[in-house]
Amino acid sequence: MLLPGPIQDLVNAFSRLPGIGPKTASRLTFYLLRSNDDLAGDLAEALQNLKSGTTYCQNCFNITTAGRSECEICASDDRDAGIICVVEEPLDVLALERTGAFPGRYHVLHGALSPIEGIGPDDLRIRELLDRLRSGEVKEVILATNPSMEGDYTAAYLQQQIRPLGVRITRLARGLPVGGDLEYADQNTLLRALAGRQDMSQE
Amino acid sequence: MLLPGPIQDLVNAFSRLPGIGPKTASRLTFYLLRSNDDLAGDLAEALQNLKSGTTYCQNCFNITTAGRSECEICASDDRDAGIICVVEEPLDVLALERTGAFPGRYHVLHGALSPIEGIGPDDLRIRELLDRLRSGEVKEVILATNPSMEGDYTAAYLQQQIRPLGVRITRLARGLPVGGDLEYADQNTLLRALAGRQDMSQE
Repeated sequence: MLLPGPIQDLVNAFSRLPGIGPKTASRLTFYLLRSNDDLAGDLAEALQNLKSGTTYCQNCFNITTAGRSECEICASDDRDAGIICVVEEPLDVLALERTGAFPGRYHVLHGALSPIEGIGPDDLRIRELLDRLRSGEVKEVILATNPSMEGDYTAAYLQQQIRPLGVRITRLARGLPVGGDLEYADQNTLLRALAGRQDMSQE
Repeated sequence: MLLPGPIQDLVNAFSRLPGIGPKTASRLTFYLLRSNDDLAGDLAEALQNLKSGTTYCQNCFNITTAGRSECEICASDDRDAGIICVVEEPLDVLALERTGAFPGRYHVLHGALSPIEGIGPDDLRIRELLDRLRSGEVKEVILATNPSMEGDYTAAYLQQQIRPLGVRITRLARGLPVGGDLEYADQNTLLRALAGRQDMSQE
């Protein structure tokens, strides 16, 4: 059976989202069709405001409300301007903020270097990062790119670029995830956990 | 960290969809923010057209394109008007159509009887079903409500109502799902599979 056009259109649009297959897409569509409150309308409105209502922070390139030049974190006096945490995506900022343990500011690269996909240093916010570091205010850069091939490559490239500036460079620790199981840990994670083992005899 | 308003609005709207938690909602939102093609715009448009572009078939109450009085199945001469399959939701029609094995037409109740939730016979399309059956054209009614408490209750109620009309009444078979595992089947399913066991000695 062919679905009516407007329904098929929405199923197709939902299917283009990551992690949503055709079955979930039609389940969502029929849910919206049945819902009494105007969830479909609310969603449509939120989607339309998404890009027009947001912009990038001129300092760290995190997402912020349109009309502001700086994001909340860069604008806050409570954050330590001496430490910058470099991440790939705005969602990574969110994940780190959830820990509540990072006192500094961020720099969002908007991607990672990937020779295969043709993403070079000029496609990322690397020049802007180096400019920030040259201002002299920053004492430490935490490279928090993803623990993937591209993320590691990006961190290595940044290390090379930042080293002449005399800023301390650190990278997030690798090892076993909390709550994980040694038995199911993959080889590379175990290798990293072994290489990065911490001394308990001094404690 | 507080998310910028337009982002939080979309995360909230996505979170109201079934099966989408706050984490998936923010993943989808940031995906849309990053995507170069106008997926957010396409989604918004499809959502706005959803309710305005669809209506219910006057015959079977399945969803159809706005401006049509009958759905494709009711309008088709290839479908057997002598068999009606009664389902709870339009999605159930889709599931049965995927099998390609049903030659008849449908009747969508839009729900199931539920004394607990206060859903009675007048809240469903039961009167319209009985009217269709009284026309005399229909030889068999397949009760394909869900194999749940509400679905079974609805089927029993319909059976009572339809019996005086002299139409053959059937119910979809219960038993072990194809590809399932006897070991993991729940007690009720096994009970049904036992009670409905089929004779192989005559084959």
